[in-house]
Amino acid sequence: MVSRRNNGGAADDGSTRARLMDVAIELFRKHSVAATSLQMISDELGFTKSAIYHHFRTRDDLLGAIIEPLIERVAELTEHAASQRTPRSRADRMLTGYAALAVANRDLFPVFSGDPAVVDFLRARPEWAAIVRRQIDLLAGADPGPRGQVKAAIVMAGIAGAVGLPFDGLDDDALRAELIAGGRRMLGLRAGRTLS
Amino acid sequence: MVSRRNNGGAADDGSTRARLMDVAIELFRKHSVAATSLQMISDELGFTKSAIYHHFRTRDDLLGAIIEPLIERVAELTEHAASQRTPRSRADRMLTGYAALAVANRDLFPVFSGDPAVVDFLRARPEWAAIVRRQIDLLAGADPGPRGQVKAAIVMAGIAGAVGLPFDGLDDDALRAELIAGGRRMLGLRAGRTLS
Repeated sequence: MVSRRNNGGAADDGSTRARLMDVAIELFRKHSVAATSLQMISDELGFTKSAIYHHFRTRDDLLGAIIEPLIERVAELTEHAASQRTPRSRADRMLTGYAALAVANRDLFPVFSGDPAVVDFLRARPEWAAIVRRQIDLLAGADPGPRGQVKAAIVMAGIAGAVGLPFDGLDDDALRAELIAGGRRMLGLRAGRTLS
Repeated sequence: MVSRRNNGGAADDGSTRARLMDVAIELFRKHSVAATSLQMISDELGFTKSAIYHHFRTRDDLLGAIIEPLIERVAELTEHAASQRTPRSRADRMLTGYAALAVANRDLFPVFSGDPAVVDFLRARPEWAAIVRRQIDLLAGADPGPRGQVKAAIVMAGIAGAVGLPFDGLDDDALRAELIAGGRRMLGLRAGRTLS
């Protein structure tokens, strides 16, 4: 789980900030980012608007604070995956890291992978958008060209969408294993042979 | 492509209605459904609000008019798939139909598969939600249990997300073929053997 607990200053400030972010994610899931105002978030918590402004001046500030730790994790993952020896082992490392991150953030991935405000937000930050693109390229790496890109897109959107659904009798560990197994089938990777 | 051209009464009415729906889809993609008002749709077209009210009294009326033909196509597809002889051929027929529908509606699928307002809309219409669930069950049919459900969820969300992206050098036919090939790999179906 990407921590939202230790981004603030003093302890109280940090926990208020974390509560604001948790409520924001809940409302983003429920209404979409664009239909959620800072006012709605303060109302939900019984805060005054000035209390929320103390932490986030705009909804984009708040959105950025939620997305940034995820993007940092993805950047670490791509770095680590890119250091593997073969295209297949790079793709496999990217897949296992992405599936683990998605399962650890089942609240965030489904809404954030499709929400138009998030797409716009990333587009406006070329260095973050580049990290997302690198992730796709690494996933597609075992099969370059448009075919590999399509497979990588199915795997990324598919995993992000799937973690938002409940599956009877599958805990997070089992779900992650299924996502990895499915992703490997899709990308033409075999377990065991590809881990370098 | 699901037609939005012949749902109205007289010819003029039908074409105004179709334009309203096209602009609505564009704004839904750009802002999410919840952040798009009937006012924004009339503004975009230079219509008065009463002109839009003549066709749709609420945003849900408009959303329903957009979703209904898709749901009807999915209902036909599930019917047809369910009539196949084996679980594998049922899953394969569902997959090929779903991929074709997604590629024919590249504007609609990415936003509609993840938008919270669409999820709520379907939840409030049990007979439509049942059609969507039946589709998942048919896709998962070759591998019942939670494992098959996860694979079906990856395929559905993955295809819906992928058709929203541009792929250099892949036209719609080639994209559909790649989506079907990827879906078959994921679901453990083999081309040729599974078509009854």
